[in-house]
Amino acid sequence: MFQLHDAFVGSSHALGELALSHVRLQGDARFPWIVLVPRIANARELEDLASGERDVLMEEILRAGEVVRAVGLALDRPVAKLNVGQLGNITPQLHIHVVGRRADDMAWPAPVWGYGASIPYSPNGLARATDAARRSLGL
Amino acid sequence: MFQLHDAFVGSSHALGELALSHVRLQGDARFPWIVLVPRIANARELEDLASGERDVLMEEILRAGEVVRAVGLALDRPVAKLNVGQLGNITPQLHIHVVGRRADDMAWPAPVWGYGASIPYSPNGLARATDAARRSLGL
Repeated sequence: MFQLHDAFVGSSHALGELALSHVRLQGDARFPWIVLVPRIANARELEDLASGERDVLMEEILRAGEVVRAVGLALDRPVAKLNVGQLGNITPQLHIHVVGRRADDMAWPAPVWGYGASIPYSPNGLARATDAARRSLGL
Repeated sequence: MFQLHDAFVGSSHALGELALSHVRLQGDARFPWIVLVPRIANARELEDLASGERDVLMEEILRAGEVVRAVGLALDRPVAKLNVGQLGNITPQLHIHVVGRRADDMAWPAPVWGYGASIPYSPNGLARATDAARRSLGL
C-alpha cells in the first residue's frame, strides 16, 4: 500500500490529488516548486511504474508546469524556464520536482536541488501560492 | 528544421537515433550519463512537444536508463540510482539528462549538473562506454 514518506511532510505542503500523483508545494519561497509523488507503493524509479502510469505521469508533469507558472504569477515572479527533476538520492520514494526558474533567481543557472537552505514562505506568501496552485489544479 | 545546438558537440559523443531523440553520451567519465535531444525544431520545454511525442520521450527516458546501467556495468561501476533531469538553463534546446548514480560517486547525493568540472574519458574508457551504450540501444 502506498504511504507518503515522512520526509515530504516537513518540507512541503499538500495541495491535493491528481489521477496518479499526490501533489505538494515545496516549502521554499525562493522558487515556485511543485512535487509530484505517484501513489504507487515501493516505486523508486520511473521503471517501477507501468507504461500507462508513466504516460499519466508525463501529463501530470505538464500540469505541474502550469501550476508552477500560476504560482510564479501570483508571487509577481513570472516563470521563465521550467526545470524537471527525478532524483531521489536523499528521499528514495519516487517523486518528481517541477520548478519555475528565472535568470534572477538565487541559484540560476545551477539546479535548485541541494542549493543553499530553503526559505520558508511568509503566511501571506504561502496563502497566495497555495491558492494559485489549487486554482490551477482545479482542486 | 531541427538542428543540434553546438553546445552538445563539445561536451558529448553521438551514439545514434531513437524514434524521437538524438542520443549522446556525456563526455564525463565521473558518471554514466546519457543525453536525449528530441528532434523537434525550437523545442525548449516538454510542453513544446505534442502529447504523443511526450509518450515516446518517456519510453526513450526508460531506454536511456537501461543504457546508463549498461555503461555503468561496462565500467565496473554498477548504477544504484537513476537521476533524470530536464533543465536547459544554460543550453536552451530541449534535452533530457539520464545519469547513473552511486553512493560513492563524487557528487553524491548532490545533483551532477554544475557539479565541479567534467573529467574526459580515457580512449579505452570511452570505447567501452560507447560500445556498451550502442549494444544496449541496438545501434
